Amino acid sequence: MDLLVYGIGELATPVGREPKGGAGQGELTLVRDAYVLVQDGRIAEVGEGRWPRFAGPTLDAEGRTVTPGLVDPHTHAVFAGNRVQEFLARAKGERYTGGGILTTVQAVREAPEGELVRLARPRLMRVLELGTTTVEIKSGYGLTLEAELKLLRAIRRLGEELPLTVVPTFLGAHAFPPEIPREEYIRRVVEEMIPTVAGDGLARFCDVFCDQGFYTVVEARTILRAARAAGLGVKVHADELSGVGAAELAAELAATSAEHLLHVSEEGIASLARSGTIAVLLPATAFLLDEPYPPARKLIGAGVPVALGTDFNPGSSPVASLPLILSLAVLRMGMSPAEALVAATLNAAAAIGLANEVGSLEPGKQADLVVWDAASYEEIPYWIGQNLGQAVVARGRVVWRSSPTPSST
Amino acid sequence: MDLLVYGIGELATPVGREPKGGAGQGELTLVRDAYVLVQDGRIAEVGEGRWPRFAGPTLDAEGRTVTPGLVDPHTHAVFAGNRVQEFLARAKGERYTGGGILTTVQAVREAPEGELVRLARPRLMRVLELGTTTVEIKSGYGLTLEAELKLLRAIRRLGEELPLTVVPTFLGAHAFPPEIPREEYIRRVVEEMIPTVAGDGLARFCDVFCDQGFYTVVEARTILRAARAAGLGVKVHADELSGVGAAELAAELAATSAEHLLHVSEEGIASLARSGTIAVLLPATAFLLDEPYPPARKLIGAGVPVALGTDFNPGSSPVASLPLILSLAVLRMGMSPAEALVAATLNAAAAIGLANEVGSLEPGKQADLVVWDAASYEEIPYWIGQNLGQAVVARGRVVWRSSPTPSST
Ligand SMILES: [Zn+2]
Ligand SMILES: [Zn+2]
Repeated sequence: MDLLVYGIGELATPVGREPKGGAGQGELTLVRDAYVLVQDGRIAEVGEGRWPRFAGPTLDAEGRTVTPGLVDPHTHAVFAGNRVQEFLARAKGERYTGGGILTTVQAVREAPEGELVRLARPRLMRVLELGTTTVEIKSGYGLTLEAELKLLRAIRRLGEELPLTVVPTFLGAHAFPPEIPREEYIRRVVEEMIPTVAGDGLARFCDVFCDQGFYTVVEARTILRAARAAGLGVKVHADELSGVGAAELAAELAATSAEHLLHVSEEGIASLARSGTIAVLLPATAFLLDEPYPPARKLIGAGVPVALGTDFNPGSSPVASLPLILSLAVLRMGMSPAEALVAATLNAAAAIGLANEVGSLEPGKQADLVVWDAASYEEIPYWIGQNLGQAVVARGRVVWRSSPTPSST
Repeated sequence: MDLLVYGIGELATPVGREPKGGAGQGELTLVRDAYVLVQDGRIAEVGEGRWPRFAGPTLDAEGRTVTPGLVDPHTHAVFAGNRVQEFLARAKGERYTGGGILTTVQAVREAPEGELVRLARPRLMRVLELGTTTVEIKSGYGLTLEAELKLLRAIRRLGEELPLTVVPTFLGAHAFPPEIPREEYIRRVVEEMIPTVAGDGLARFCDVFCDQGFYTVVEARTILRAARAAGLGVKVHADELSGVGAAELAAELAATSAEHLLHVSEEGIASLARSGTIAVLLPATAFLLDEPYPPARKLIGAGVPVALGTDFNPGSSPVASLPLILSLAVLRMGMSPAEALVAATLNAAAAIGLANEVGSLEPGKQADLVVWDAASYEEIPYWIGQNLGQAVVARGRVVWRSSPTPSST
């Protein structure tokens, strides 16, 4: 698709194809009075001032702000059922232990693949309306070979069908299925699931929930080594509920990312900095559970590139909005709007292996962008819980526009 | 307008024309397999099972949940400029004292009436998309006769132009203008502004910011007595920053509502219960400032009817979403989803004098309703920060629908 986006009051974007840590975390390029020229779904030019003559379709930003399409590097967005009752029990003070995952596992096992797709479609369209154009989606609610493959096929279909870029992650090691012994399940993950998933090209990454009550560091190491050997990228759900040394494991394996990190140790932070592993922080769970937020400033201070995601799932994070995540990052985690925007674009793209493709507005990258009804990118976290999105462009095509003001007559 | 809304999986509504306190706070009528018949913009029938033959326009809810249109009983939604820098300074730990109000006053004084309308229009349309069909809007960013009248005329124009029901409140006593002595300003509020505003029918209520650093109880009493004598309803911004006995004043004056109440005393709560004054709670400011939330359970326990609002304004609450307010009420204030829904519909309507017109789905009331993409009203607070609205009906007309899923081909 070809497209000219003109009349951009402020274009705000990180630049590059590598994750940005330390001072780079807050480095945005700002262009006033800008335009973006798209050819064949890719950015051909980001310019300033007078835009070129163009015969194809155009989009007038009317002086508004444009950023790259947001990238959500951590979701569990394909599921069946909901966990409203667990949410209400927790609102009354019950503690979150992750036990509710098996409620969703049961619902997912019972749902046909088409039903999983049908349920996820409107959810993902709402995500798109909120400015997200790339989303990672994890399996992990199946916990059998058959059900995990069903989830990954549903994820693939959604990526083919919707105007979103979807990155699938295999998370067979999300919890333990109640019906078989722990060691036997790990054996199946390593010997059956990983080879099948990798062989069928159904996932780009393998992730393990390495935490108190879930997979130990030793078990996670075994699974992730097998995944790497099968050609999958490596991610770790690390130190969310308790500090178990999962960040250190992520560093040891030179994982692409370590995620959550609410209870990461000082040594864990230092080791992530050394290995170049990206910290994917998910503040919605802290908000929901009213607990301390992940230590963004410490990580940034140590030079670890920080990405932000929703962790969208029916239990610990019924939050699908990256703009709301940016608000939490600025209000509760001490991040600047620039640091938060880099975290939800280029660094998030790097955390899912797509820093060459998305996450910034520069020639050669996929033409994914959002026109925000704002005079500056700083307003995105400021207007909390509003959808400021005016138009969303994915691969050079306008895939969503806010409805025009109806008259009352 | 005539309309038949059918295929409603769950219709959830309070019933009545009076605010609900105590046990009534959580009383919803739930109808499965329901329909709503609208004639001339008003509800003619709420039925169950087989819907009647109908020749006019129809809306298929496809098994989804329907509630009354939400009612936001406290906003400052007409303003110029923004206060992003104040927001960012506060995110870094600066304390909120209300001083930023004068920043907005300056911007509003400089803006022509048409500019205020133009700026507010997209904001209010986004509010409508989030399910709000009735909104109270306060003046108070003018602080001169001329500028307050300009704000109130802009508010009236927005109500005429947009498919929202708008209730205007005169809040001349919002802050003190820097250019004249305090006593002189109060004299002008009482002798010039209130008579003009009431005489021109530009406001339905008068409100006073009665708090530490703002209007004292004695000053507020003088102003509100003059307002009542001029035929205006009475509201009080009460005990938000500090407990100054403003709730007791609201009770003494039998005010329609006392708002904020973060620092209300035990005696203040008891006196509100005796006077039948509605407590309008505004949790977004507590969320923004990371401070204790208003004492909803204590108020409900004492039998005070609780309403919920956004307090939407560019300083202490850049939050326009009532669904997000419902999430905060359930997560942080111990309210049940039913109590929160009553608070944002019937009790909110009563707090702005419209309990006979809106706030519930029953024959004779204005046909304002929301179709939510949810199986139950309990999901509205649960899916935090998402817009679950599928369609919004105001006065029997479909004024907003979520965009259809685009295909990627
Ligand atoms: Zn997760
Ligand atoms: Zn207010």
